[in-house]
Amino acid sequence: MSLDEFRARLDRTAVSVEALLDRLLAPDPLPGEILRPARLVEAMRYAMLGGGKRLRPHLVVEAARLFGREDDGVLRAAAAVELVHGYSLVHDDLPAMDDDELRRGKPTLHRAFDEATAILAGDALVTLAFDTLADPATDADAQIRIDLTFTLARSSGIGGMAGGQMLDLEAEGRFAADGRPLAGGEADTLRLQAMKTGAILGACLDMGAIVGRAGEEDRQALSRYGRLVGQAFQIADDLLDAEGEADLVGKATGKDAARGKATLVSLLGIETARLRLSKLVDEAQGSLARYGSQADVLRQTAAFVASRRS
Amino acid sequence: MSLDEFRARLDRTAVSVEALLDRLLAPDPLPGEILRPARLVEAMRYAMLGGGKRLRPHLVVEAARLFGREDDGVLRAAAAVELVHGYSLVHDDLPAMDDDELRRGKPTLHRAFDEATAILAGDALVTLAFDTLADPATDADAQIRIDLTFTLARSSGIGGMAGGQMLDLEAEGRFAADGRPLAGGEADTLRLQAMKTGAILGACLDMGAIVGRAGEEDRQALSRYGRLVGQAFQIADDLLDAEGEADLVGKATGKDAARGKATLVSLLGIETARLRLSKLVDEAQGSLARYGSQADVLRQTAAFVASRRS
Repeated sequence: MSLDEFRARLDRTAVSVEALLDRLLAPDPLPGEILRPARLVEAMRYAMLGGGKRLRPHLVVEAARLFGREDDGVLRAAAAVELVHGYSLVHDDLPAMDDDELRRGKPTLHRAFDEATAILAGDALVTLAFDTLADPATDADAQIRIDLTFTLARSSGIGGMAGGQMLDLEAEGRFAADGRPLAGGEADTLRLQAMKTGAILGACLDMGAIVGRAGEEDRQALSRYGRLVGQAFQIADDLLDAEGEADLVGKATGKDAARGKATLVSLLGIETARLRLSKLVDEAQGSLARYGSQADVLRQTAAFVASRRS
Repeated sequence: MSLDEFRARLDRTAVSVEALLDRLLAPDPLPGEILRPARLVEAMRYAMLGGGKRLRPHLVVEAARLFGREDDGVLRAAAAVELVHGYSLVHDDLPAMDDDELRRGKPTLHRAFDEATAILAGDALVTLAFDTLADPATDADAQIRIDLTFTLARSSGIGGMAGGQMLDLEAEGRFAADGRPLAGGEADTLRLQAMKTGAILGACLDMGAIVGRAGEEDRQALSRYGRLVGQAFQIADDLLDAEGEADLVGKATGKDAARGKATLVSLLGIETARLRLSKLVDEAQGSLARYGSQADVLRQTAAFVASRRS
């Protein structure tokens, strides 16, 4: 599969997910809803629509495709992960958290609207994610829907994504008496990253396997791939923060150094980090051996995650 | 059933829910979780443990009991609603939202900890609610678990609780050019209240009916009771805010008037509001006719909601 073909596949999923999010965030209330306040709809749409690579939905979709599943239900599972990702960005950007002004090259939600609206929009987005998974439109089988719900909840809560953001704030020395960053070692940094970004990336593969009715061995292979891609993603992110240009990345760069926070790049140096990244990509690709050329898209995805420039 | 017997029943559920929340918020990670950050566990426990009437869990438990179901699974469903209620209080209290200093007579979470921790604790609480429902421990039947999830998600998201909080901020004139409260009429106020507090109270009865495997007619009767109790709850709340003493209520009172916000009390006057409250209680009790004396607890609950002093 050529890079152009890969890009086209990635883009196609992004377009489909955008269209589905547009429908999920329509102004009209669903059965059981009383009213969707216009301001809240607008804020949620601002946070979710208009781009992004949609890497997480892509992972769900491509994992499910390995098992021959390719339909609107898979996209709904993919959109649910994206809603959780989107809510986490909105809340992480808040003044009390990372206090960011830019996200994907435009003002963050609390700058474009206000803090109260941003908090509520995040709350309504995470709730919509679980609503979307629980809706029979996602899968006729209740067991599949509840497995998806469980996987997304457990990976994004206190022991996963939300907990990872807590550790991240702690690593910055936010709650230390002297306000100085903690001198976290490699193991601490890996764990923080595994929680903050790795858990959800891993959940994408698990969710693709769930909707695809994958057996235990397939689930384990994909789970391993997910963990490795998650680690690669984070090293690439650290490299971007250390080397990238804000214009290209669409958000502030150099933040980790400015905050004195340990990253794999600051711990290992740029060269070693690059080597490790390349090794992770090899391992991730190797974990898909059982699927032959069918898994070429996911192999390309691992390389793409490592080489991204924004 | 005497008032003492009713109180004892209410207290027993509160004690059981407290014990279950204590277990759900234990420091050790569950399978699939990497680590539970100590600070986040502490903040979530601060928000959830140590009292409260646990009215919502009580409604779930008593609705389920009508159909002979009374076990740990029911309590888990009840605790999930309480987690959603708790997260909404934590986020509503934030400086950017209602900026409250007291909750149940102690400092609000962001005062006791800090804003970032409060935002994250709320996020992790709502996620834990869905995690709890999705866990097989709640019910062996996936269909029951996903119905619970769907009911809780739909009632607490953009078209329910979160949307209601948005309307509430709008009613205060938060986003108006002149910052003046909107002159909402009775219909607007009823709708706001139906979303902000009514939807979740209604969901409690629906969830009790779901775990109890209630048939369609039972579901409708309980749903009607839930709506009426929700309205009664809100009038009682408005009366408390207008008349109550902060010491007793455990949070600031007189806030609605200070913010110039329309309430049923300001729209109807205290006497008419009291009359309407009493009528709602009668109707709620009447909607349980099919259950005879079995529903005495829920009848007492309607009266209790209307007469509470804190």
